[in-house]
Amino acid sequence: MNDSRALPLLVTMGDPCGIGPEIIVMAWARGALGRAVVCGDAQVMRRALAAAGLQRPVACIDSPVDVAMVPDNALPVWQPPGLPVGSHLLPWGQVAASAGAAAACCIEAAVGEVMAGRASAIVTAPIHKEALAAAGVSFPGHTEMLQALAARHAGQAEPPPVRMMLANDELRVVLVTIHVSLRRAIELLDLPGIVQTLRITHAAVQRFGIARPRIAVAGLNPHAGEGGLFGDEEQRIIGPAIAAARAEGIDATGPYAPDTVFMRARDAQGHPGEFDVVVAMTHDHGLIPVKYLGVEQGVNVTLGLPFVRTSPDHGTAFDLAGRGRADPASLVTAVRMARRLSGG
Amino acid sequence: MNDSRALPLLVTMGDPCGIGPEIIVMAWARGALGRAVVCGDAQVMRRALAAAGLQRPVACIDSPVDVAMVPDNALPVWQPPGLPVGSHLLPWGQVAASAGAAAACCIEAAVGEVMAGRASAIVTAPIHKEALAAAGVSFPGHTEMLQALAARHAGQAEPPPVRMMLANDELRVVLVTIHVSLRRAIELLDLPGIVQTLRITHAAVQRFGIARPRIAVAGLNPHAGEGGLFGDEEQRIIGPAIAAARAEGIDATGPYAPDTVFMRARDAQGHPGEFDVVVAMTHDHGLIPVKYLGVEQGVNVTLGLPFVRTSPDHGTAFDLAGRGRADPASLVTAVRMARRLSGG
Repeated sequence: MNDSRALPLLVTMGDPCGIGPEIIVMAWARGALGRAVVCGDAQVMRRALAAAGLQRPVACIDSPVDVAMVPDNALPVWQPPGLPVGSHLLPWGQVAASAGAAAACCIEAAVGEVMAGRASAIVTAPIHKEALAAAGVSFPGHTEMLQALAARHAGQAEPPPVRMMLANDELRVVLVTIHVSLRRAIELLDLPGIVQTLRITHAAVQRFGIARPRIAVAGLNPHAGEGGLFGDEEQRIIGPAIAAARAEGIDATGPYAPDTVFMRARDAQGHPGEFDVVVAMTHDHGLIPVKYLGVEQGVNVTLGLPFVRTSPDHGTAFDLAGRGRADPASLVTAVRMARRLSGG
Repeated sequence: MNDSRALPLLVTMGDPCGIGPEIIVMAWARGALGRAVVCGDAQVMRRALAAAGLQRPVACIDSPVDVAMVPDNALPVWQPPGLPVGSHLLPWGQVAASAGAAAACCIEAAVGEVMAGRASAIVTAPIHKEALAAAGVSFPGHTEMLQALAARHAGQAEPPPVRMMLANDELRVVLVTIHVSLRRAIELLDLPGIVQTLRITHAAVQRFGIARPRIAVAGLNPHAGEGGLFGDEEQRIIGPAIAAARAEGIDATGPYAPDTVFMRARDAQGHPGEFDVVVAMTHDHGLIPVKYLGVEQGVNVTLGLPFVRTSPDHGTAFDLAGRGRADPASLVTAVRMARRLSGG
């Protein structure tokens, strides 16, 4: 079997018209990507090098594992078969079907490589939902697309249950619901979904080197329902789910008041966190605190996939693209975390 | 007419069994309360002085305006008429009907004084909802109680529309909905309520010395609905409310994605805030970021009342009470802010 330590990590280029390509080359030029291979369009990456003011060559390779043969001064790029080319001719910041198709092709190819054991992990640069949609790809985000691809490659009818984790130096958060309206998120909450989140979270945080993760479960309602006065989901669903997880040996506690549990979990100098991770019921309960101190440090980790996938915690920033002024910090952290989680 | 600058500020003692009395005496002993008068039970305040290790006398006064006659070394306490006494005999941290009744009596009396022009503002120490309920007082919090009292004193049938603002050194947040389930909060959102919040917020932030406050309006749904994909409240209610407020000359913008708007508004060293205040649709969207860096610095300001009212951003902390170890920082900030807003 392949040893994932020897395998290259893949970084998908993201939307060619966004900041993805340039943050990749900026991070690479700083030596922060190590032996990673860009899964993307060579011409797009050349344009990104120029935008970032970097006079460095691109080395096209036939397979990610050929990265060992690439000289240090060249950017290793693997152009997946069937990649729609020509994206480098599009204006920066434009929503374009061809750009969306190119971004999607890279993601598909990267999943294929990692599922075939030829890559250690995937780090995805940001994509643009409208460009994806224009290309006929109907996933609300990377997560759902990766889920479907993982199922297809594994020959499974059902996509694997996944959860989105956002992490920075101070806080880890896992979300029970993500890209749905808040109204729908409340309707979707159920005991099996929360128990599954707790299982996935428990296993994932163990991979961070914590043998028995302390999982705080945030409530849904103000003051975690104030004993039923402000909503009963805590008593009816969340509390029983915590009890079920505890019966399996998972150290989950709560439900805690949403407004203070993140502060309590925050692990900073002079403020040791009370928990290793917080499970949040809704997208914004979880993401508001992770992003509050600045999105640069945040990393998105998809838990539950049959491979390691991380991404920076920001979008395509079309308004910034092509100026060489975007900040690659979150991408760098995403690569570091992908490497740590894949043992690569 | 009375000049509010010359009037004393009232600090209600809060639940006698919680940390309210001791944080009051600790703040006072540090000189942080200035000419404030405690509206409370003299015996309770004596017990608090002892708990805090302070050997200082209590000076009972017949009316708050008599504070000028109190020597500097004595804690000025005004015992309102009809105050149920004996609370100092209750164990610390106990939920007791008599304690709830005493706390409520102090709040009622303080509102009477400030509405009669004999006090400049009210700062409330924390109360305990269960103790209040045991005393037959059926308000879910201070805010609703103050609203009802203001209406009663003004002879109005309807309580004045109020909003809760939470503020610390970095961030001001005003909430459209507060102590209801998240499900109910979504149902309660309507155009008039949001426009009213924007008007109240605009007027309130002007009192902070900002002539034309930049008001950011957070959306309700993930990504502010992603163009209707994740909920339509932004398009149906929040967007039109912003437009209506703008037509009145209010500088409100949005709706912004909830997960990044607070980060954008955060005003810290090296990170100038893009907005002066954020209006949040739900209790926890707004309070999670305000509390994330620590509740000690947060202050609660009730906007829309006919008087200035602030409070510390924490509860009775029954588990801590009576040990002299609670942190009076938030109370001190609340007093400072009440003074600033009342010009006192």
